[in-house]
Amino acid sequence: MQSTIRIIGIDPGLRRMGWGVIDTLGNTLRFVESGTILSDGDADLASRLCQLHDGLADIIHHHKPDEAAVEQTFVNKDAVATLKLGQARGIAMLVPARAGLKVAEYAPNAVKKSVIGVGHGEKQQIHMMIKVLMPKAIFKGNDAADALAIAICHAHNRQSFAGSLAHRIAAATA
Amino acid sequence: MQSTIRIIGIDPGLRRMGWGVIDTLGNTLRFVESGTILSDGDADLASRLCQLHDGLADIIHHHKPDEAAVEQTFVNKDAVATLKLGQARGIAMLVPARAGLKVAEYAPNAVKKSVIGVGHGEKQQIHMMIKVLMPKAIFKGNDAADALAIAICHAHNRQSFAGSLAHRIAAATA
Repeated sequence: MQSTIRIIGIDPGLRRMGWGVIDTLGNTLRFVESGTILSDGDADLASRLCQLHDGLADIIHHHKPDEAAVEQTFVNKDAVATLKLGQARGIAMLVPARAGLKVAEYAPNAVKKSVIGVGHGEKQQIHMMIKVLMPKAIFKGNDAADALAIAICHAHNRQSFAGSLAHRIAAATA
Repeated sequence: MQSTIRIIGIDPGLRRMGWGVIDTLGNTLRFVESGTILSDGDADLASRLCQLHDGLADIIHHHKPDEAAVEQTFVNKDAVATLKLGQARGIAMLVPARAGLKVAEYAPNAVKKSVIGVGHGEKQQIHMMIKVLMPKAIFKGNDAADALAIAICHAHNRQSFAGSLAHRIAAATA
């Protein structure tokens, strides 16, 4: 018998960190909640990272997901922006891992392919497809929508993720 | 009457995170301990960030520093490396901040200037000057030496750091 798996998807960012929680059972998806954690742009960097940490820790404590998925950050050509994103992404990976969750990573085009069927597309298409896949989904803004898309991507790919983990563990202990 | 201030300097890196603890009283510096936290290059990223988090949290719990200083990461042109460094740096800033410490940031050339008198120099010069400034200092490798140099830089600059913080608070509440 299969059991329901609860997934949190996280879209990392220093100013805005999107999150979306869904339940998956077999091929069905159920929306739980989504939102955006904001950090105070006037605060120093260490305080902002604490704000993101505490916000995400509260959500994980409240919703008790079984697994987490984080977008593999888009590495652009602006090194300062990449560094900022990296710092926020460190928090996005750390918090679920410290809570004992497995943390999967997906490239942006894998997320898009999983939700809209192709590896590229407009934000509006992602919003629409989330509504098709989970009619009861409620989300405000792109960050929460992206986080839900990451959670959906993990729901579709988690068996192969578990397989690849088992494979890696087997290879490492061989 | 002045009181001794204990400072932890942190040199962030995903594979190797250097740390150095010193005491400062007026113009005197005293070496306490230094070391390097390693993450397991074969583990997944989330686990590695947990290893860095837990190692740094243990050191802060043990040595109970009053203030922290972290090097402002060198932003190079390799975006993948910058992202990795950013993730480790997020942890290096988060852990002391969550422990209630103020976290100062210094650019690499400010650190060098504070230790060897000029904004550029070889690793070997930094090692030598740490030994001149703190004859009892013990450190293995560049990461721990760099972390001690960051702590020394903060010892030299912390009054102006506190001043600038007070100034920022005054400006924000004006």
